[in-house]
Amino acid sequence: MTADKPTNNQACDENCSTCTTAQPHSVPKGLPLKAKIDVQHVILVLSGKGGVGKSTVSVNLAYALAGHGKQVGLLDLDFHGPNIPKMLGIEDQRPAVLANTLEPVHVTGNLAVISMAFLLPDTSTPVVWRGPMKMGAIQQFLAEVNWGSLDYLVVDLPPGTGDEALTIAQLAPNVRDAVIVTTPQDVAVMDAIKAAKFIGKLDLPVLGVIENMSGMSCPHCGKDISLFGEGGGKKAAEDLGVPYLGAIPLDPEMVKSGDEGRPYILRHADSPTWRAVDTVMKNLVAQIEAKPA
Amino acid sequence: MTADKPTNNQACDENCSTCTTAQPHSVPKGLPLKAKIDVQHVILVLSGKGGVGKSTVSVNLAYALAGHGKQVGLLDLDFHGPNIPKMLGIEDQRPAVLANTLEPVHVTGNLAVISMAFLLPDTSTPVVWRGPMKMGAIQQFLAEVNWGSLDYLVVDLPPGTGDEALTIAQLAPNVRDAVIVTTPQDVAVMDAIKAAKFIGKLDLPVLGVIENMSGMSCPHCGKDISLFGEGGGKKAAEDLGVPYLGAIPLDPEMVKSGDEGRPYILRHADSPTWRAVDTVMKNLVAQIEAKPA
Repeated sequence: MTADKPTNNQACDENCSTCTTAQPHSVPKGLPLKAKIDVQHVILVLSGKGGVGKSTVSVNLAYALAGHGKQVGLLDLDFHGPNIPKMLGIEDQRPAVLANTLEPVHVTGNLAVISMAFLLPDTSTPVVWRGPMKMGAIQQFLAEVNWGSLDYLVVDLPPGTGDEALTIAQLAPNVRDAVIVTTPQDVAVMDAIKAAKFIGKLDLPVLGVIENMSGMSCPHCGKDISLFGEGGGKKAAEDLGVPYLGAIPLDPEMVKSGDEGRPYILRHADSPTWRAVDTVMKNLVAQIEAKPA
Repeated sequence: MTADKPTNNQACDENCSTCTTAQPHSVPKGLPLKAKIDVQHVILVLSGKGGVGKSTVSVNLAYALAGHGKQVGLLDLDFHGPNIPKMLGIEDQRPAVLANTLEPVHVTGNLAVISMAFLLPDTSTPVVWRGPMKMGAIQQFLAEVNWGSLDYLVVDLPPGTGDEALTIAQLAPNVRDAVIVTTPQDVAVMDAIKAAKFIGKLDLPVLGVIENMSGMSCPHCGKDISLFGEGGGKKAAEDLGVPYLGAIPLDPEMVKSGDEGRPYILRHADSPTWRAVDTVMKNLVAQIEAKPA
């Protein structure tokens, strides 16, 4: 392989600052170039375990930031279960293609969404892809989507610390931090700690831990039911030395809201669950906005 | 590249049955060789969405098959959230290495387990791997583990239809069928249908659909709570034309049992949840055993 060698007559002295052919090899070997997307702050939403509420948090966070007047993008990187369009009631929409770029689907004037779901013929087609194909798609979702100028890009990742998480961290510019979602269940907390350590390996700070599905009230007798236990998220945050952003209970109304495509935070219902979501999002947005621009 | 060409003087007429040098190119190009593992029947347990109870089903299925006197292996392929050892209370065990092969951890005389969790220094270390590294590990988990002669290998997959699912289907011999786990929630059912279509693309039959977290009884007033809805699993099975294996309710006792490392099926408690698990497992084992050897 000679692709990394200079092609003119100048001998390579490994000092790129004085080299006239520096451009092709000024990027560290093995690391891809950052994608061209105009975004100030990329926030990763991840968990270790699946089914803990990452997408719910991503959707509500994106709405909360947009509600502060920011230009927000929401990128659904769960290729195998791209559920954000369904949760927003826009699963039948298709992004327009204009001059070789894809128009994201706008759910409000300042909140735009891209998901693999928009590119599939129907909701039952599986995406049977290995890592390298996902990497190509992530590159396109960043560079070939007409996001405009974004203050924030909220990235909803699939469970785990595999190809999608590594690729977005490598390709997106200004990946600043991550939020970790868990349930109080031991196995979920164990995996959440792994996810936080992964973020540490990327030299990124963890904005905080959210405990989702944290107890519930019986809709009949009103008594508390400790379904997946309680307090695991808080303990994980303490052990990791990162902020604890609060707990969101399990509420059939919230589940229904996701299935019906109505983001829960928009309901402004005066219920304990709504107040919990509102508090967690305020805590999270405060952590995000406390960062220097 | 000439690796696929015959190296003697015989011209290749693309008829391998008459070719004296057929062996090196009798395997279709691009497909890896099957791993050397002595197993009669590999069963994949998958879902589309995470957190729906795949590992719970895998564990209970492995115990149910072992309870029928079969030699059973349980392979945890969720590299990023390998929770089966924790669910079995064996997370502190480490497989012995004997003559370059790994001894699986035996939980009963005829049930052996391998998981990435056994190979990590502690429960908080994340596995930050791209697809090709996972492929290498899966190869080792099949060929370099002293499984002995297995009747069944139950494979607990991570959510989705990516590298792990593709790799096990390619590398393991006698992959015969798959069971799909879902909750009744719309987004989970949508992803379960994708998982079933993926199994169809592999030309494998779906043994059936299990609906997990299907309603719950309030532990205080005893009334039914429809947490994630109901009936989604049954409808998915009908739409797919595959058997519906039954519903397992959400039960804090079952969650606790997983967190405490005690497989629920072993409890033999006379509770509605235990009876539901027992019925679903009986249905599933009947489907499995109905297959010709």
